[in-house]
Amino acid sequence: MTTPIAAIQSVRLDDDNDVLVLLDQTLLPNEKVFLQLSTVEEVWDAIYHLKVRGAPAIGIAAAYGIYLGVKQVKADTYVELAVEFEKIKHYLASSRPTAVNLFWALKRMEDRLKQEADKSIAEIKQALKEEAETIREEDEQVCLAIGEHALSLLKPGWGLLTHCNAGTIATAKYGTALAPIYLGQERDYHFSVYADETRPLLQGARLTAWELQEAGVDVTLICDNMASIVMKEGKVQAVLVGCDRVAANGDTANKIGTSGLAVLAKHYGIPFYVCAPLSTIDLECASGDDIPIELRKSEEVSTQWYEKSMAPANVKVYNPAFDVTDHELITAIVTEKGIAYAPFKKSLAELMGKEG
Amino acid sequence: MTTPIAAIQSVRLDDDNDVLVLLDQTLLPNEKVFLQLSTVEEVWDAIYHLKVRGAPAIGIAAAYGIYLGVKQVKADTYVELAVEFEKIKHYLASSRPTAVNLFWALKRMEDRLKQEADKSIAEIKQALKEEAETIREEDEQVCLAIGEHALSLLKPGWGLLTHCNAGTIATAKYGTALAPIYLGQERDYHFSVYADETRPLLQGARLTAWELQEAGVDVTLICDNMASIVMKEGKVQAVLVGCDRVAANGDTANKIGTSGLAVLAKHYGIPFYVCAPLSTIDLECASGDDIPIELRKSEEVSTQWYEKSMAPANVKVYNPAFDVTDHELITAIVTEKGIAYAPFKKSLAELMGKEG
Repeated sequence: MTTPIAAIQSVRLDDDNDVLVLLDQTLLPNEKVFLQLSTVEEVWDAIYHLKVRGAPAIGIAAAYGIYLGVKQVKADTYVELAVEFEKIKHYLASSRPTAVNLFWALKRMEDRLKQEADKSIAEIKQALKEEAETIREEDEQVCLAIGEHALSLLKPGWGLLTHCNAGTIATAKYGTALAPIYLGQERDYHFSVYADETRPLLQGARLTAWELQEAGVDVTLICDNMASIVMKEGKVQAVLVGCDRVAANGDTANKIGTSGLAVLAKHYGIPFYVCAPLSTIDLECASGDDIPIELRKSEEVSTQWYEKSMAPANVKVYNPAFDVTDHELITAIVTEKGIAYAPFKKSLAELMGKEG
Repeated sequence: MTTPIAAIQSVRLDDDNDVLVLLDQTLLPNEKVFLQLSTVEEVWDAIYHLKVRGAPAIGIAAAYGIYLGVKQVKADTYVELAVEFEKIKHYLASSRPTAVNLFWALKRMEDRLKQEADKSIAEIKQALKEEAETIREEDEQVCLAIGEHALSLLKPGWGLLTHCNAGTIATAKYGTALAPIYLGQERDYHFSVYADETRPLLQGARLTAWELQEAGVDVTLICDNMASIVMKEGKVQAVLVGCDRVAANGDTANKIGTSGLAVLAKHYGIPFYVCAPLSTIDLECASGDDIPIELRKSEEVSTQWYEKSMAPANVKVYNPAFDVTDHELITAIVTEKGIAYAPFKKSLAELMGKEG
């Protein structure tokens, strides 16, 4: 399904030139620059410097990075190629040590390498190219399925509120929380979207507002502390967010501020939907108490982005990157295999059972 | 009551040199500069350019501005002086046309002028100086009384959360919502204060974090969207906010984001206190529905303070400066005459009856 909407495709292979085309997210929203990467070193640099962000997008970029690296290897035998593959894999793995999708994608490329061990060097290189393409296409299909399921929960003309960026540029194409918005846009749902700016790193302002505006979606930027007033004024009929990890009981870790939105949504009687690829559901994790919350540096709050410091020197800052939304505040968790409702422990386990 | 704590006294007359000493709030938190103003033109400029902000502080500055202006008038008769007074009053009134306290203070100075009509020119000038001093001192006493009443609701060791700046630099000395924090600091309550940064204008980061840190209070800066996690983690035992207007039923208009904090506080079972001088209670206003909300320009959200734009060009922005907190979310309203509990319609009317 290809349409002009949500067709930014910020991570893709240009087949004619065999280069990875990557939207440089660090320059958004001021410049829309597509990088053309032809070496593994360039891909490493792009991941390291956050030119590509969003777990699925990082995984896809890394898979293409493997292909671009292996393509340049001069090897006569599989063993020679496999030795070089390992070097490339470890090199890419060092680009962003905490991104789970990165390791997942590298592992998957390695599995494919091993499957093709009896093929010619040229055939193996072609197979790795295909595998990277498959990873990208699968992510697109997962997001599309999440979008369809989530769209079934929404009505034309609704106001929707989202937080951070769970959009096209964080994935292969449709995003997770933004997927139903793009599908709705294709089908004349005429959503009005409110995008929280998402302090401190402003992913909502810099990325979500940008990509929705690019796609012609009616988007309005608000500060995080304005979510209450837009809900109270009846401007919002549903909240849609992505997630970083979902525990077995439905507790959901996502960008800081998500739990507050869920409390507000419950108070104002507005449904709160989490859009979650099955890959983010962690049944090993019993509840949100088991999800560690990353604390980040104070400069992100006090000085970053600003012309001059906006807080007193050496002020104490508490800067958790994520928070956990209690499952009791979540109306439904939308996956590519269907929609989970409470009790989530049962419904999520059932959906996970459908996997594969 | 003078102590080293909360003794910034950002608006005061230097008696030795007969100049208005004013802390330049536009330079905070990076520079602590006290302006020495000796002419009414300098006072006008300070109000106009927001070097002094906070409704009580603006009123006090304007009263001193009247005195400094009248002092330089060459007049032989009361009528001559009164004509010049009117010019000075209208000139100062043009500095910030929407600040209610400004007009209130100018009117009060005018009333004093008329009371002194039978005195000598020198005596009238001295009386106006005294009136400005009285306005400042009364504000200090009002804040002190609010602080004492609010402190009675708090326990040593508590974590407190506040929003925007309702502190010493917005008033003569103690602030409103910050008054009990300063009093607690003097009495070894060892509060831990969380200051919301308060987007878009960052009064919490620039001003509240600064003045509490200056006073040695244990203050931690958070982004507005982190209020939920600090409450959930048990770091906060009470929320204290100021207000811009309180309706007869207790609905309270205050800086944008206040209503969301109140919803969160209720969800987490944390008391939510509004600190309100009686001058902000408007019994003519039946409910929050009657309080107009000022919408401000989009640049405050998308570009102001930043090195480069943090949102796409021409993005739609919704930027209400205030919101209304429903009276059902408010635990108590603390005034200089005592503490009002629900039903507020009755309790506020009783407190207002005590006035004067």
